[in-house]
Amino acid sequence: MILLDHDALEEIALGATVLGTGGGGDPTLGKLMAQQAVAKHGPVQLLSLDDVPDDEWIIPTAMMGAPTVLVEKIPGGTEVLEAYRMLEQRLQCRAAATVSGEAGGLNSMIPMVVAATLNIPLVDADGMGRAFPEVQMVTPTLHGVSATPMVLADEKGNRVLLETPDNFWTERLARTVTIQMGCSAYIALYAMQGVMAKKALIPGTISLARAIGQLLLTSRSQKRDPLTALTTLLRGRRLCDGKITDLRRRVDRGFTRGEVDIVGTGANAGASYMISFQNENLVFWHDGQAEVTVPDLITVVDEQTGLPITTEALKYGLRVAVLGFPCHPQWRTPAGVQLVGPRYFGYEIDYVPLEDVR
Amino acid sequence: MILLDHDALEEIALGATVLGTGGGGDPTLGKLMAQQAVAKHGPVQLLSLDDVPDDEWIIPTAMMGAPTVLVEKIPGGTEVLEAYRMLEQRLQCRAAATVSGEAGGLNSMIPMVVAATLNIPLVDADGMGRAFPEVQMVTPTLHGVSATPMVLADEKGNRVLLETPDNFWTERLARTVTIQMGCSAYIALYAMQGVMAKKALIPGTISLARAIGQLLLTSRSQKRDPLTALTTLLRGRRLCDGKITDLRRRVDRGFTRGEVDIVGTGANAGASYMISFQNENLVFWHDGQAEVTVPDLITVVDEQTGLPITTEALKYGLRVAVLGFPCHPQWRTPAGVQLVGPRYFGYEIDYVPLEDVR
Repeated sequence: MILLDHDALEEIALGATVLGTGGGGDPTLGKLMAQQAVAKHGPVQLLSLDDVPDDEWIIPTAMMGAPTVLVEKIPGGTEVLEAYRMLEQRLQCRAAATVSGEAGGLNSMIPMVVAATLNIPLVDADGMGRAFPEVQMVTPTLHGVSATPMVLADEKGNRVLLETPDNFWTERLARTVTIQMGCSAYIALYAMQGVMAKKALIPGTISLARAIGQLLLTSRSQKRDPLTALTTLLRGRRLCDGKITDLRRRVDRGFTRGEVDIVGTGANAGASYMISFQNENLVFWHDGQAEVTVPDLITVVDEQTGLPITTEALKYGLRVAVLGFPCHPQWRTPAGVQLVGPRYFGYEIDYVPLEDVR
Repeated sequence: MILLDHDALEEIALGATVLGTGGGGDPTLGKLMAQQAVAKHGPVQLLSLDDVPDDEWIIPTAMMGAPTVLVEKIPGGTEVLEAYRMLEQRLQCRAAATVSGEAGGLNSMIPMVVAATLNIPLVDADGMGRAFPEVQMVTPTLHGVSATPMVLADEKGNRVLLETPDNFWTERLARTVTIQMGCSAYIALYAMQGVMAKKALIPGTISLARAIGQLLLTSRSQKRDPLTALTTLLRGRRLCDGKITDLRRRVDRGFTRGEVDIVGTGANAGASYMISFQNENLVFWHDGQAEVTVPDLITVVDEQTGLPITTEALKYGLRVAVLGFPCHPQWRTPAGVQLVGPRYFGYEIDYVPLEDVR
């Protein structure tokens, strides 16, 4: 049995930032919440997706909204538990475990709080294998799993139960409620039974995040190059090395949107690169040509340490490397590309898997 | 036993427009829905508030949003029933009757659809005795009745259950959900048991609306002056006669706001009047001085026929009379004036009861 303790949460939070591809929210505050819960209630049992009984329910939990709001609008701590319990009530079930819908970023940590406090396991899986900004952007949508019934809860005592005809309506109603709640809400949604979870979720994401975190935290003492280790672990590629020369970043309809310009250095001297982002990094451009796009992962890291740099932390003059990692095969189906590919985000570009470029 | 048939609905809808004080929504389409339901399922039993058993639940039903949207976004017809049923489920009860939260305007009719279709009585009462624009503006709020659990339903299949810490939060969340639903939603809220309903509701509003409608529909054939009959019935006053000389009307944050200028005619020649409105008529000004304000009722009617003119139907050149009617005594308490008095709507004016003016 794998138990996740204080240090494991440290590792997972760091690895989740790499999987967050620039977005997903800084997990720091969520990590502190989870570590506090573990200190009080004991470590979290990590349950393999294969071991979830077919007829048992699991309930994903998360924070919705602007993660930066967390810093000034501290949660009471029980909102996410109440969302989880209210969804159990609605389903008239006692769920066997919680799980992360989005293990990239902050939402790798929120389900840990639920699991530790309620003394239930956390399933080693998620619904993205990375981070995406909208409710419907999860692999369960590809399997026809309804996001609703969904519960939203805030620290003021508001509780909202949604039932919607499809997951796009869930996004629309949940988003407007979240904004009224003060741009952050705690949610329980996409409840499913084990038999569906095994098809619809991406297995092993929590373990993967932990492995990434361990690698980054130990590479210096082990005198390994963290970037090579990372691209090997994730079967990805170092897309470029360079220096940030310009940054256009704006808040637009609740999202952080923009572009960052990078001038190549070392072996990439003379080349120019750009990354377009909407919370997450969406498109990596090389001399004006789109080279890597969502749903593949594009992560900016510090050139020396390999530590991930979120879109919020980008700044002029940083020396960075850009890494590309292949997304989970579920995202590479036509339905997957339609749900989260470059065209959904407004780019008239066809998705080409990372491995097929150049 | 009083049964409300096709003609009774005609009378009630007309009377409700007078009580709507310019707002509340044109009841025409709601009336057609209710008349259709009555044609199919039989007449509606009107239940006196006194006859509601103390331990039985009643569930108010209504349409929320912009009534004008109804014309282009025809309801499927079952939304309001589903809102009612879902609230019953949440309360784990079978309610004894429905009731109007707002008998002024369109929402005099929506509960008729529920009562006729489900073959349950309609309680002869409402929560305003008139029309007001926001969810918390009902006498039950003065008695500490929670608007939630509240259900919103739309024609697309969306269902939203709200639980909020107070009725202002209900307004805030329900409003934003209604806007996303396309500016109209069907709602069930303010569920209460008979013992509370007898304290918190305003008795007899449906009968009163019917009496107003009958009076207006029969006055011509009976050669009675409808305006005198109306002010006598409602113990009100004819505030002025005049001609509309200017109108400033704008849509602002989901409300129809504006002012109408009236120049006195006949006995009022030489005087100038103005009415400020936000959906409903809020303040009646006489030569620049506020004379009658919410929560008292200010209704503009045709000078000849006494037929009510809503704020949407005001136009240059109309010859009108402005009538003032006293509101229910519950609104004249300090808490009532705080909830719906002129200062809530942004006017730095003290409320003076209609009868105490001049």
